[in-house]
Amino acid sequence: MIEDNPYGFFAREPGARPTLKALDGRRQVIHLGSFAKTCFPGARLGYVVADQRVLAPDGRSTLLADELAKLKSMTTVNTPALSQAVIGGMLLRSDCRLREANAPARAHYAANLDVLLRELERHFPPAERDRLGVSWNEPAGGFFAVLHVPFTADEQAMERCAREHGVLWTPMAPFYPAGGGERRLRLSISALSGRQIETGVARLAEFVRAEAH
Amino acid sequence: MIEDNPYGFFAREPGARPTLKALDGRRQVIHLGSFAKTCFPGARLGYVVADQRVLAPDGRSTLLADELAKLKSMTTVNTPALSQAVIGGMLLRSDCRLREANAPARAHYAANLDVLLRELERHFPPAERDRLGVSWNEPAGGFFAVLHVPFTADEQAMERCAREHGVLWTPMAPFYPAGGGERRLRLSISALSGRQIETGVARLAEFVRAEAH
Repeated sequence: MIEDNPYGFFAREPGARPTLKALDGRRQVIHLGSFAKTCFPGARLGYVVADQRVLAPDGRSTLLADELAKLKSMTTVNTPALSQAVIGGMLLRSDCRLREANAPARAHYAANLDVLLRELERHFPPAERDRLGVSWNEPAGGFFAVLHVPFTADEQAMERCAREHGVLWTPMAPFYPAGGGERRLRLSISALSGRQIETGVARLAEFVRAEAH
Repeated sequence: MIEDNPYGFFAREPGARPTLKALDGRRQVIHLGSFAKTCFPGARLGYVVADQRVLAPDGRSTLLADELAKLKSMTTVNTPALSQAVIGGMLLRSDCRLREANAPARAHYAANLDVLLRELERHFPPAERDRLGVSWNEPAGGFFAVLHVPFTADEQAMERCAREHGVLWTPMAPFYPAGGGERRLRLSISALSGRQIETGVARLAEFVRAEAH
């Protein structure tokens, strides 16, 4: 099982939840983490916990992490020394406790997600929502919500929305390599103010109504 | 034709030589460059000049550089913002003239290569060289020379040399994906003083004589 956990520190409710890896008594979980969300956007630095015993090509018993490190090294040669130094310094400064260091960021994202969900509710009340065929998820954390719409949410639709309504979103179909997601779009709240989210959802609601008719 | 030019500024003789790309009137050359040698080791930042017109999958005419950028984006997602900022600052500070900015580095590498070649000549004079089956190239620049030896220069030999003689080199066979290079080893002079190179070649000569017998 692969646990991809870049947003693990950014729950809407404060406080720690155990990772799957922390519950993994039988070494069945591979845990992926990123410093790009907790420390520095574009750091291009992450980590993997892969303590599974595997057989190397030459038959020796080794750790999956060591084999992954070799593949990483063959793919990208090495990891930027500058990013490693900056992230290393941030870890030292926070006594390696990124949850505490990210408490203000967590509160910011949680408040923004609350605004987003409240504004979606306000612009698409239940009867209207059913009539249009609009729905969304209520994520327990992170930076994003996914909106299900009654039309194809592709790059052309995204361009119309940006040009005519002044709001941007991400088409979800590219996240489904085997096909799917054509009527889903992703809303991001990471670098916005509550006021900007209010404006954005109002514009988005205009766009959805225009496309649905 | 692919011109891979990370060491292009580090010729043994000062002064500029034209790149193949500069002579490329017919857009047949793809030029690769790196900022890791000229600006910052481990920057993980480079560039490609690929002004060839190609057909995109959808039949549009586009530049090879744009198609390569898409592949790059799919492989590594994006390039570290921190590295880009640092390299950008260094380019601005040197008025985008990296040849001038690297003049001291060029002189350092050129002097070190001269010491390396002089010491190889001293420890392996022509008759001795022929008897042992030792030879080397005389590079016109860069950080490296390649030594041809009369035994297999693999990782085990490298370890023996490090442990018993206190000097390190790089086996060349991994640079020949289709096989070859088993009796070649690479000597690096980039971060050494002239004195260290003298010591290193003396130790290497002991190792080569021990292995050759």
